[in-house]
Amino acid sequence: MTIKDSKFLALRTIMQTENIDGFLLPHGEAYNGDYNPFYVEGLQYLFGFSGSLGMGLITNDKAFLFIDGRYTIQAKQETAGTDIICDSYNYDNIAKALTNAGTKTLGIDKQLFSENQFIKIQNLCDKANITIRALAKNPLASLMSDEVKIPATPAFELPLEYAGVRTEDKRKHICEQLKTLGVEASFIAAADSLAWLLNIRGNDVPHFPVSLSNGILLADGGFLWFIDDKKSQTLDLDNVEILPPASLESTIKRLNLRKIHLDPASVSAEIFDLCRSLNIDIVQGVDLCQFPKACKNSTEIKNARLAHEWDGVAICEFLCWFSETAHLGGLSEVSAAEQLWSFRVKNPKCIEPSFDTISAVGANGAQCHYRASATSDSVIKSGDIYLVDSGGQYLEGTTDITRTVAVGGVAPDFIKEHFTRVLKGHIALARARFPRGITGGHLDGLARAPLWEAGLDFAHGTGHGVGSYLSVHEGPQNISSSSYGVALEAGMIISNEPGYYQEGSHGIRIENLVLVNDTGLIGEHALPIYEFETLTLAPIDKSLIKVSLLNEAEKNWLNAYHKRVQERLSSSLRVATRNWLESACAAI
Amino acid sequence: MTIKDSKFLALRTIMQTENIDGFLLPHGEAYNGDYNPFYVEGLQYLFGFSGSLGMGLITNDKAFLFIDGRYTIQAKQETAGTDIICDSYNYDNIAKALTNAGTKTLGIDKQLFSENQFIKIQNLCDKANITIRALAKNPLASLMSDEVKIPATPAFELPLEYAGVRTEDKRKHICEQLKTLGVEASFIAAADSLAWLLNIRGNDVPHFPVSLSNGILLADGGFLWFIDDKKSQTLDLDNVEILPPASLESTIKRLNLRKIHLDPASVSAEIFDLCRSLNIDIVQGVDLCQFPKACKNSTEIKNARLAHEWDGVAICEFLCWFSETAHLGGLSEVSAAEQLWSFRVKNPKCIEPSFDTISAVGANGAQCHYRASATSDSVIKSGDIYLVDSGGQYLEGTTDITRTVAVGGVAPDFIKEHFTRVLKGHIALARARFPRGITGGHLDGLARAPLWEAGLDFAHGTGHGVGSYLSVHEGPQNISSSSYGVALEAGMIISNEPGYYQEGSHGIRIENLVLVNDTGLIGEHALPIYEFETLTLAPIDKSLIKVSLLNEAEKNWLNAYHKRVQERLSSSLRVATRNWLESACAAI
Repeated sequence: MTIKDSKFLALRTIMQTENIDGFLLPHGEAYNGDYNPFYVEGLQYLFGFSGSLGMGLITNDKAFLFIDGRYTIQAKQETAGTDIICDSYNYDNIAKALTNAGTKTLGIDKQLFSENQFIKIQNLCDKANITIRALAKNPLASLMSDEVKIPATPAFELPLEYAGVRTEDKRKHICEQLKTLGVEASFIAAADSLAWLLNIRGNDVPHFPVSLSNGILLADGGFLWFIDDKKSQTLDLDNVEILPPASLESTIKRLNLRKIHLDPASVSAEIFDLCRSLNIDIVQGVDLCQFPKACKNSTEIKNARLAHEWDGVAICEFLCWFSETAHLGGLSEVSAAEQLWSFRVKNPKCIEPSFDTISAVGANGAQCHYRASATSDSVIKSGDIYLVDSGGQYLEGTTDITRTVAVGGVAPDFIKEHFTRVLKGHIALARARFPRGITGGHLDGLARAPLWEAGLDFAHGTGHGVGSYLSVHEGPQNISSSSYGVALEAGMIISNEPGYYQEGSHGIRIENLVLVNDTGLIGEHALPIYEFETLTLAPIDKSLIKVSLLNEAEKNWLNAYHKRVQERLSSSLRVATRNWLESACAAI
Repeated sequence: MTIKDSKFLALRTIMQTENIDGFLLPHGEAYNGDYNPFYVEGLQYLFGFSGSLGMGLITNDKAFLFIDGRYTIQAKQETAGTDIICDSYNYDNIAKALTNAGTKTLGIDKQLFSENQFIKIQNLCDKANITIRALAKNPLASLMSDEVKIPATPAFELPLEYAGVRTEDKRKHICEQLKTLGVEASFIAAADSLAWLLNIRGNDVPHFPVSLSNGILLADGGFLWFIDDKKSQTLDLDNVEILPPASLESTIKRLNLRKIHLDPASVSAEIFDLCRSLNIDIVQGVDLCQFPKACKNSTEIKNARLAHEWDGVAICEFLCWFSETAHLGGLSEVSAAEQLWSFRVKNPKCIEPSFDTISAVGANGAQCHYRASATSDSVIKSGDIYLVDSGGQYLEGTTDITRTVAVGGVAPDFIKEHFTRVLKGHIALARARFPRGITGGHLDGLARAPLWEAGLDFAHGTGHGVGSYLSVHEGPQNISSSSYGVALEAGMIISNEPGYYQEGSHGIRIENLVLVNDTGLIGEHALPIYEFETLTLAPIDKSLIKVSLLNEAEKNWLNAYHKRVQERLSSSLRVATRNWLESACAAI
């Protein structure tokens, strides 16, 4: 593929008709807001890029793909042999590219941009004297129409034994905030917020069990749900009115609102425009479902422990099988991932993977979000370092685990040092206690310090929030060195996943999910002290550990963790796996 | 003193004349911006409060003092027996107090509020339907006139052998930024920024060697310096015009500016009003001197090492003397502080203390900013925990060190555990390496984790920036769990001072100053890796360490640090002190 490729040519023809000499195509992770098939698949269609976050720019004679650190290597590979210019995803680089291309009029589909994103684009265009043209119709719509089907699976209710709290009670709680804010309604754009609020789920998107739709929460607790009636016909929710998506604009007009709450990070620039055109006062603020959704209730917590036990059984069966099989040769990344999935689905409780498994050997492991495929399916052999990052969706919860193992149980000393430093960071975070008010940003240094000490680091966040039978990535909590996130609150589930990646050689990541618990201790300023409970249950490969680098506290943590893994899982394992686990969990 | 005290009565009489039923009196640390004698001394005068940060509110029948966590205990003691209501310093509490007092019109002296502070007050008054009245004359001016003398010491040039970079070169560098911002001038309100920019110092304020004045940097590198000519008469700086402070308004009018840069955190609301009234476009941004001032140049760094060596000699002489004397009894907090000062001034290079020494025994040590005085001068006895936080001003640099020692060399086990956890945090920070881009906020957890582990914490920042023969507290860098500060940059000097305070029992703090150095290593994303060089040289009391709580890396750090202290200081010590130091620095 080159940029003279027919798809680009066809797009440029439409661009000429629309009188634009630039077209900007965002691609966000679907859970961040409005979902749109062109939105999600456009970068794959045009650029062949399969990552989950990026921004494409097509000008008269150039094509740019902006991606973040996770995708640097992958984007390079997926666009190899083309003229596509890959660069880091930031607004300075987008501005530079627009200026260098001499763009005069930039076309944009405002449905695809959150208000925040649009304002950033507007600011950089203002500075560069570029005119923005909001397009009535996305140019990709006609190009991709044959390839894209709008998902329309039935939405279903998540029973109370999983949801834990009734939708009426959730809505009542959020409505109190609407009253405090003095607004009559809040537009809910994020698919997972809507799923949480109504206790419904769907299968419109792989791995992400939501029903693509949006709606308006009214201050009296009523909900106007814009969803295709084919998807909602079996549902009858109290105080929820089902309306066709096409009626959104007329409904908002009919409501005659004075004041509405909108989250500029998830609500589209188009909805903002609509409210402004109707003279509705906009109170901007974070999606009101986000925080309560992140703080799991007692039912969700109890179930999360169960889901992680089931998931741990599958992982142990896989790791045992892998340790017996992989060093013999002949196994590939794809076949290993398939085998892992076969262990997960042995348990009928496991519904689907929570994301595409990353099964990566050697240098492929240095791509944080590598996806093995028929064309890039490397063979695993003894002496390799193998990284597998996978998860499952259960009605009881969402899992996400990464293990890195030495194929054949041996590895060079320098890789063991890398692994042990990653492990030290993982343990420092797992052992951390901290008072209420502390954010993930404050804890991030704990996970990185052992790597920093050796002049090493990793180019992704240390932790992301995880939903409850929802998205494997959710906010507002995170553990990061580039943002701080919100204060960690009891009930939040978050990943603990430091790593280290050496391009062309190997990748290491150790990922467990942890739950924020209240210790019952009270610290300074009468603030409660929190700690992490590690939910994920699976052994960490001891053959990659350089024991001399661990101090006593670290050894004690590892031994206690392995003891707990064994106690919780052994009775559910096959005899051979149980024996393997006994040795994998023996104290160091 | 009660709130019916004559000063309050007199103030309320003026308030009636001014038609206000509330008067708000801020008290910031002088280095934050404009200095004003009423500003600095008002809270002491009215409330008897001697701390360095607070906000007073006087209503018709109540008086409130808002202070931060450092001053909770001190404010309680200093206002004991009065009706003054002490509360945490935040804008919610100020709003609550104004509402509860039924205030209708709040008087404010806009000279005393930075623009940022004023906007916050304005917002909370708007919400509470309170009118703000900007007072033409501060009501305290007439009340305090007899007690206050406006400082007027001569300003003097700091020779290049200390400043390191010529003022012309500094101004040229900042002027490039003025050009980028498209402004014709920047108002320099912060006394230390002005001192740094012009390479001048003064003695207007104890401990803080600045000459109180402000000025305007012009885009051509010229500087209009508003300073009393009695203070500046010996000075003749190239391209610097000296003007009387009273001509500020007319000068700004005469300049006929179109666009000016103002820092809303340090420039007063009054100056903002003046510029607005003259239709000058305001470009808001951080004080442009702040960042380059924080990144010490090679001369300042070389000299800082020297100043810390001299200071370390004084501290060692003191600690040796203290270890021989204190356990015998009869020594008091004040006499110990005087003795420490006498050791410092033995070196003629030491000009003055960099702040009032905190010399605190037992429960007094639990007040982070305790100041012993004739009325609260506790006697030190064997078995006590003694905390001493002090520093010196040298032309070569500013020092700040805290040591906590067990009088008589013994302490209960629980206090040793507290001390050792503080030490573990101190060491974790001292050993930290981190890539460029990391802020103090990201590192803060390293210093607190060993305390958090036991459900403990401390209610102050872990680190503050330190000037070069300037303020012992400077921005923009910090290490804190309540703010993040800027990315740490090579050349910055910052304190490493975790602590632990048990009210009514004891206080512990271990403070060294550290310098951010480039390791020469390059990490991910081609970012340089930085590390801290500990500048402060003095032994840490081993009799307070529970060695079993330290891991090997921590023991190694402590032993290496003590070895360095001994190597650098021994030859400058008296024989008795040299012998004492040998034992104090012996490996554990």
